[in-house]
Amino acid sequence: MDGAIGLKGCRKIRGSQIRHLLEAKDFFLFDCDGVIWHGEKAITGAPNVVNTLIKQGKGVFFVTNNSTRPRENYVHKFCRLGFTNVNQEQIFSSSYCSAIYLRDVAKVQGKVFVIGCEGIRNELREANVPYLEEVDEPDATIYNCALPTDVKAVLVGHDDQFTFLKLAKASCFLKDPDCLFLATDNDPWHPLKDGRILPGSGCLTAALEVATGRKATIIGKPSRFMFECISSQFTGVDPAQCLMVGDRLETDMLFGSNCGLETMLTLTGISQMEEAEEYSRSEQSNEQCFVPDYVVDTIADFLPAFEELD
Amino acid sequence: MDGAIGLKGCRKIRGSQIRHLLEAKDFFLFDCDGVIWHGEKAITGAPNVVNTLIKQGKGVFFVTNNSTRPRENYVHKFCRLGFTNVNQEQIFSSSYCSAIYLRDVAKVQGKVFVIGCEGIRNELREANVPYLEEVDEPDATIYNCALPTDVKAVLVGHDDQFTFLKLAKASCFLKDPDCLFLATDNDPWHPLKDGRILPGSGCLTAALEVATGRKATIIGKPSRFMFECISSQFTGVDPAQCLMVGDRLETDMLFGSNCGLETMLTLTGISQMEEAEEYSRSEQSNEQCFVPDYVVDTIADFLPAFEELD
Repeated sequence: MDGAIGLKGCRKIRGSQIRHLLEAKDFFLFDCDGVIWHGEKAITGAPNVVNTLIKQGKGVFFVTNNSTRPRENYVHKFCRLGFTNVNQEQIFSSSYCSAIYLRDVAKVQGKVFVIGCEGIRNELREANVPYLEEVDEPDATIYNCALPTDVKAVLVGHDDQFTFLKLAKASCFLKDPDCLFLATDNDPWHPLKDGRILPGSGCLTAALEVATGRKATIIGKPSRFMFECISSQFTGVDPAQCLMVGDRLETDMLFGSNCGLETMLTLTGISQMEEAEEYSRSEQSNEQCFVPDYVVDTIADFLPAFEELD
Repeated sequence: MDGAIGLKGCRKIRGSQIRHLLEAKDFFLFDCDGVIWHGEKAITGAPNVVNTLIKQGKGVFFVTNNSTRPRENYVHKFCRLGFTNVNQEQIFSSSYCSAIYLRDVAKVQGKVFVIGCEGIRNELREANVPYLEEVDEPDATIYNCALPTDVKAVLVGHDDQFTFLKLAKASCFLKDPDCLFLATDNDPWHPLKDGRILPGSGCLTAALEVATGRKATIIGKPSRFMFECISSQFTGVDPAQCLMVGDRLETDMLFGSNCGLETMLTLTGISQMEEAEEYSRSEQSNEQCFVPDYVVDTIADFLPAFEELD
């Protein structure tokens, strides 16, 4: 890569600069929502970009903190939205990586108590990690409910069926210092279409951290673990050859930075150029981790570069 | 007060030292749970202590972060447990003080969205502060529910019917910077009888703080506001003439310290002598606020001092 492109920090690139970057990198890690799609709508040009990178033989991975869907649903979604040729093996969701962590790293000996959606239970089932099936009576409270003694991990993810009783049960399980405390991710909130806010897993984790005085181990971005999953499953994934593309400075750019990857902010999602520049100017050295190396308006800006390459 | 007693920090006192303290103070502020009762059982001797102080003409106030009951229920409870002569006016609960704050300090112009139990709604009604009546359809979600535009405050207290939808709605209301964000208290958890944990309001507040990026204004201990309520409603309540008696260092002792009151830790509740001594030895200057001036095993230790006084 030439010197000009190699300059650090919030560099808005286009045309030949993007072409140089695409030539220099062998692996592309994409966040999903806000980067390649918005909910059920692909970002214009994104399917073409992803399809072309795969066709060119680049390693393409998807790293998403969204824990609500099992990976097989993602495969269908990719296909439905025009991303052809995406396999389940390329998808690293926080629920999948949490299951891998529990099975291979923590080697949990007991059941997992899940605060989360079906996506998490599905991935645990796939990984043969046992979890507690909840069958609460309608009048169950923390005073009268059963609390099995074989729970050895609490896993918190996005849960739109979150209740006080789940919080209370998890708090009780975590009184046992041998019970692991994991969170799929620490995202504080997600934007909804009409200006509403969807609280993220980070809210539920914070509640449980206050109740227990413990800190959760975060599996998703910005933790390194998702990259470790990728590099343990694919050979030759050298951080220097990777580009992390995302829309949220505090998760995606920090994740890239934590893993030693160059980072690109795309402005189709949550974070805007002004926020990136503010971090860039910050004198607090820990805030430099939020600064993207490169910035594009949309990943569709890759398309002219492909044409030059062809 | 004599010099020996006046020494600061974790001083375990008894007999004549307690007598001197009782003589020196005109006002006694008691936390309730863990200090004068455990749930539905009065701490042995506590009713006698409180009844005697009132009979002696001391000012006795109860300052509780428990927001779940309206004050009239407390009056009945006091009576039932043998505390005769306690009037509603002596009871400063976090729900009552929150209603006073919204009415007299914030002068809220709009409705309050309540995350909490009936005790809060009851006190708001009494204070003529309008709140949102919730009538969610069973299939309501943050995607489809109504969000009234006249909500100008969110008040978070203990809520055993807390749900994800309540969290999400509150997050949306708090996007309006003119919408106040209050919490009855910030208690992280409460012990239950069998070793279980009851998550406190502090958990729910933390969740909402993460979702909104805002900090709640705390009404209950350790905030000064409860003391301001007392001193605005009773004349001559000089901090130097007050003793704050509580069982939790991080709320009760800090509250006393914040209000310029001498403090007493009673060992019938949450915090133990070792924790108090640890704070006392701490070199972090902000931790000295958690150190009680005096320590007793139980407030029943007041009884022999009364006998000497008679």
